[in-house]
Amino acid sequence: MSAGGSPVDFYFEFSSPYGYIASQLAEDLEKRIGRPMQWRPILLGPVFKITGQAPLVEIPMKGEYSRRDFSRSARLHKVAYAHPEKFPIGTVAALRAFYWVNDRDPSAARALAKALYKAYFVEGKDIGAPQAVVEIAKSVGVDAAALAAALEDPAVKERGKREVDAAIAAGVFGSPFFVVDGEPFWGVDRIPMVEDWVRIGGW
Amino acid sequence: MSAGGSPVDFYFEFSSPYGYIASQLAEDLEKRIGRPMQWRPILLGPVFKITGQAPLVEIPMKGEYSRRDFSRSARLHKVAYAHPEKFPIGTVAALRAFYWVNDRDPSAARALAKALYKAYFVEGKDIGAPQAVVEIAKSVGVDAAALAAALEDPAVKERGKREVDAAIAAGVFGSPFFVVDGEPFWGVDRIPMVEDWVRIGGW
Repeated sequence: MSAGGSPVDFYFEFSSPYGYIASQLAEDLEKRIGRPMQWRPILLGPVFKITGQAPLVEIPMKGEYSRRDFSRSARLHKVAYAHPEKFPIGTVAALRAFYWVNDRDPSAARALAKALYKAYFVEGKDIGAPQAVVEIAKSVGVDAAALAAALEDPAVKERGKREVDAAIAAGVFGSPFFVVDGEPFWGVDRIPMVEDWVRIGGW
Repeated sequence: MSAGGSPVDFYFEFSSPYGYIASQLAEDLEKRIGRPMQWRPILLGPVFKITGQAPLVEIPMKGEYSRRDFSRSARLHKVAYAHPEKFPIGTVAALRAFYWVNDRDPSAARALAKALYKAYFVEGKDIGAPQAVVEIAKSVGVDAAALAAALEDPAVKERGKREVDAAIAAGVFGSPFFVVDGEPFWGVDRIPMVEDWVRIGGW
């Protein structure tokens, strides 16, 4: 199916298990809805400063539930999942690398996002450090030396910050988060609702 | 279908829009899964003291999303919904009334729960005060004088507290919340998952 119409925004944080699961489902969703999806990594750290929230696993009661639900949801969706030993992690380098690649080749950026997620949530590699991100980027064909230099470039840092600020301005406070024609949907559970919304045109 | 097997616990807070929506779907769910459901009101106030969370609508960003999503979710599920002017409210009287009625007649307690939810989320009546709860209980055939007296009874207050404590001990931190054979499910979005879990027996 050709993907026409204005893009559906798909926001995710590289340290988010539900974002990872959504990334595994997003391309099938894109085909089903027949609309292009724009992958947009975010950082939950700056969001939590605004909302006063904390990483799920650090919240009493919710934390235990979440740990159980991460792998249960992955099994339900037939997605490989191994909860990383170090969790959550900072993902600003991953985010900057994504947008730098995306500005040059959006399909390479998707491949990078999937490789980063796989490294973290399947292989248990810590993807926090710039060197780890560069290594993974190299494995999907990105110019490692150019990326390593870009990750030190203030303009690339600023580019990442602008994306996070824009997401927050658009009301994005969680991962995954979808926006269809201005309508926000939070959570991997809402994928069927996103699909219905596109099909019906709202209700 | 006869409802055999051990009960599925359905926890909800009377001030919770998603709990209300779930209450409108719970009896169809009960029929589909062929297992009896035990309706168990809770109070989110004591839960939030443990989790450090706050009512959804008071959380920056999440609050705006939630207000939009309450009515959107209600429309999706074809459930009447008018966001109450006073929201959220304290529901300890409603909870105590529910358990007092439930100990005498579980089906009358369900009728009371539905009437309380309808008064609050459809008719916009504040159901916080004991008098309001007694009035609504009367409309579904409960002995108003006996209930009014019960709501002042320390044993009835203690009964309510025990239920809330038991829910917290069972890991319940939100509304709606379902527990199937020890397996917890949080949110109205998870009803399909509850159904799959019963059908498959877990995965």
